[in-house]
Amino acid sequence: MTRIAIVGVAGRMGRTLVNAVQQDPQASLAGGSVEPGSSLVGADLGELAGLGKLGVTAVDSLEAIVDDFDVLIDFTAPRVTLGNLAFCAEHGKRIVIGTTGLDDDELAELDAYRDRVPFVFAPNMSVGVNLTLKLLQTAARALGDEGYDIEVVEAHHRHKVDAPSGTALKMGEVVAESLGRTLKEHGVFERVGQCGPRSDKEIGFATVRAGDIVGEHTVMFATEGERIEITHKASSRMTFAKGAVRAARWVAERPAGRYDMQDVLGLAD
Amino acid sequence: MTRIAIVGVAGRMGRTLVNAVQQDPQASLAGGSVEPGSSLVGADLGELAGLGKLGVTAVDSLEAIVDDFDVLIDFTAPRVTLGNLAFCAEHGKRIVIGTTGLDDDELAELDAYRDRVPFVFAPNMSVGVNLTLKLLQTAARALGDEGYDIEVVEAHHRHKVDAPSGTALKMGEVVAESLGRTLKEHGVFERVGQCGPRSDKEIGFATVRAGDIVGEHTVMFATEGERIEITHKASSRMTFAKGAVRAARWVAERPAGRYDMQDVLGLAD
Amino acid sequence: MTRIAIVGVAGRMGRTLVNAVQQDPQASLAGGSVEPGSSLVGADLGELAGLGKLGVTAVDSLEAIVDDFDVLIDFTAPRVTLGNLAFCAEHGKRIVIGTTGLDDDELAELDAYRDRVPFVFAPNMSVGVNLTLKLLQTAARALGDEGYDIEVVEAHHRHKVDAPSGTALKMGEVVAESLGRTLKEHGVFERVGQCGPRSDKEIGFATVRAGDIVGEHTVMFATEGERIEITHKASSRMTFAKGAVRAARWVAERPAGRYDMQDVLGLAD
Amino acid sequence: MTRIAIVGVAGRMGRTLVNAVQQDPQASLAGGSVEPGSSLVGADLGELAGLGKLGVTAVDSLEAIVDDFDVLIDFTAPRVTLGNLAFCAEHGKRIVIGTTGLDDDELAELDAYRDRVPFVFAPNMSVGVNLTLKLLQTAARALGDEGYDIEVVEAHHRHKVDAPSGTALKMGEVVAESLGRTLKEHGVFERVGQCGPRSDKEIGFATVRAGDIVGEHTVMFATEGERIEITHKASSRMTFAKGAVRAARWVAERPAGRYDMQDVLGLAD
Repeated sequence: MTRIAIVGVAGRMGRTLVNAVQQDPQASLAGGSVEPGSSLVGADLGELAGLGKLGVTAVDSLEAIVDDFDVLIDFTAPRVTLGNLAFCAEHGKRIVIGTTGLDDDELAELDAYRDRVPFVFAPNMSVGVNLTLKLLQTAARALGDEGYDIEVVEAHHRHKVDAPSGTALKMGEVVAESLGRTLKEHGVFERVGQCGPRSDKEIGFATVRAGDIVGEHTVMFATEGERIEITHKASSRMTFAKGAVRAARWVAERPAGRYDMQDVLGLAD
Repeated sequence: MTRIAIVGVAGRMGRTLVNAVQQDPQASLAGGSVEPGSSLVGADLGELAGLGKLGVTAVDSLEAIVDDFDVLIDFTAPRVTLGNLAFCAEHGKRIVIGTTGLDDDELAELDAYRDRVPFVFAPNMSVGVNLTLKLLQTAARALGDEGYDIEVVEAHHRHKVDAPSGTALKMGEVVAESLGRTLKEHGVFERVGQCGPRSDKEIGFATVRAGDIVGEHTVMFATEGERIEITHKASSRMTFAKGAVRAARWVAERPAGRYDMQDVLGLAD
Repeated sequence: MTRIAIVGVAGRMGRTLVNAVQQDPQASLAGGSVEPGSSLVGADLGELAGLGKLGVTAVDSLEAIVDDFDVLIDFTAPRVTLGNLAFCAEHGKRIVIGTTGLDDDELAELDAYRDRVPFVFAPNMSVGVNLTLKLLQTAARALGDEGYDIEVVEAHHRHKVDAPSGTALKMGEVVAESLGRTLKEHGVFERVGQCGPRSDKEIGFATVRAGDIVGEHTVMFATEGERIEITHKASSRMTFAKGAVRAARWVAERPAGRYDMQDVLGLAD
Repeated sequence: MTRIAIVGVAGRMGRTLVNAVQQDPQASLAGGSVEPGSSLVGADLGELAGLGKLGVTAVDSLEAIVDDFDVLIDFTAPRVTLGNLAFCAEHGKRIVIGTTGLDDDELAELDAYRDRVPFVFAPNMSVGVNLTLKLLQTAARALGDEGYDIEVVEAHHRHKVDAPSGTALKMGEVVAESLGRTLKEHGVFERVGQCGPRSDKEIGFATVRAGDIVGEHTVMFATEGERIEITHKASSRMTFAKGAVRAARWVAERPAGRYDMQDVLGLAD
């Protein structure tokens, strides 16, 4: 049983994490923190998450629960996360980090803990997305240069401001690398008008923006006679929360080191 | 039982038409023509089509079979087709025309037969595509300006040289017209980089080019909470041949007039 | 601007309805009721719905807000709903009813108000599902007995206890009726082992149960050469709430009568 | 350049193999055989395949072309195939076998050549299907018992007489084995009526039969928050022919042994 504490337990991701911990039979909810001075200090974490009373209350300092937890989960902000990493190093704890937006200095500071703390750091904790990346690598290597055309189609909600999505680009990069190509040279991001026939090595991207689509990605490998499609569909942020809890259980048994989701899932080369 | 003759029976479309006529229990194969002087004059139409001997042989002049057929099917070239239309006018026959590429003069010449010959003229004879256009009109009118985002996604084989496909554009136009919009103003044909959130009235297009895909079109209407998708997938040119045979059976019972597939299918407003 | 009040505003559907009313520029939130004696009397409807304070508070009797609203929305229980219908008759109000599970007596009691109250009664308020039913009717009539095989595929979350879904059956029935068939005679609900080739007139059903799928339905019309697929995907109960708000706006302008969503959407024959 | 000869070159699969060899820049068409006494002895293989004259003619005995080819491709019948395997053993040739329907004695006889002939034997030569099996194994192992529901959906043409397809069952078996389950215990092949909620370990199958669908298979792994779908779509028998040619090129460089498509694709564990 892995005892897990959650940083920023009052936010939307924090409350989703409470749900994910509660659903996991091998994890227990050991505590959760809110910002110092928040009116939610003392609130029941279950009530915050819409689950009813769980008997675990929000604190405003990790010191208060230091004996209760094994692994921290942190999806907050770079400076907060680096502070929590220092706290884990000092107290022999582990940490799962889903925080994004670290700059190069912050990344270097984070990396310096790799000999002192067992931690998982991944910009996308979704088990499915990380598995999909592995499947794409396997597929690309097997199909090689045997005449399979590769296309990436992604769909997101109407509010998304960039295209293609970061995950679509990552998928395209994994495929390109596996084939000795680059998106810079072979990525095709628009086709309009008389654009001519497709070239053999291009990797095409198509984008849909509509409604409330959380995130759908399909990579297609097509040739004369057949198509293989590998698809990921996210339906809620629970996919990220469940990945984080899985990472927490996994890192609880590991020595100091910086890990990512490929390690957690046993998919690293 | 509609007795059907096929112009250009030795070509790929001609042979597919032989198959489609043979499959239709309400149609019989009355004859087929090849170019004057062709070495295939006298060849059995069934053997040409890979069906075994049918006992109907290729001729090089419609005169030779004028008493045998009720309706002609013609997917050839503009000048040939206009000649056959004149032949039908003279002999009291009907004709289904799938020929494309007529210029404005040729279109005017064709149209002039509308009082003398019952004929169906449609650039895309596929029953499914024509039905899909009707469904799109119904859907667009019902959803109106109620916050549904509209996207058109199409996929074709690697050899296609233009994008989006003519059928995708036609689908977008039907939707746009039904909503009092235009593709010129509201069509969005590329999204790359920081393109900002989606606007309410835009109609987006996304294109896939891969492998041997004959033609797939999906129009999506998406809002918070739900999506409706209307999809057409062509798997072979049989879709066009079967539509033509259906049109031939239908036009056999009609007075002189120029009809399209919406008429044949009973979908015209 | 249609002034809308919501019955049962503290439940999950009630809170979703608050959201849907707030999103609709042609509707305003006029009030909401909770059960008599509830501790939530006086709570702000916006805070209940996670939207922040809106300045409209929950009441425990419609009398208290009788001058504030034009249309009531009620997704509660049969006896409650019939009481509210009587209230609307007495006070010249309109009502949109999404309540399910009425028995035959209750249905007769409800129907008796058709001359006294303008009301919309529909077991599934989703605009998309109702539009889909219309599209299926159009498609089935156009394709007729022209050799199109019809299959219904539905997917729902792992907790659903029956199969196929009520909506899948409804879709199959609409198609069957349009073709002069019945599901009793032509529905095929399982294919296992050596089941032989497909018959021409059967309507097949296939069921998927997995994960958190809210509800996906596809009806496929397939023949040699092409497929048409009409798909509805629900992503949240907002689809029902938004349909109800649209019905409320529509019924605000209607004379006494019992209406369904086909009427609201202008799709009735 | 691998020199390939084809057994049974006049059949539909034989003609497709001629096409596939011609398309492959690393393979050359060395010959083809027809049944002894066939009227097609001496026919040009290109003309048989609809490609125009290639200058290679059909023979009725492999002896006649024994010096011309390196690898034989055989999609015929068990006794014919075993005779050809003996021929290959005697003359130091290699062989790719796509023949199905061997009984246990025939399988034992075939297996006995594993020390004398380099040969590839696979019931399904499709590169995509074999890759898909590998991807399924990877996915099942990574997702393990983490609450992902597994469903297999397959669609085939109206003439198919059994359900689920052999390929769907094979996909289910690969997933089951990877998870320590069996289809016998955990396969669910029908869901009709009040069937109750889904159990955790079941592997569901759903079947569609319609139109001219060559073969589509999707395996879905779904949990709260996300879905991964791995899909294979066959569009023609070219997928089998191209796999066979790829196998022929691969086995041309191998020592004696019995191989399957996982070996050819470098996917064997």
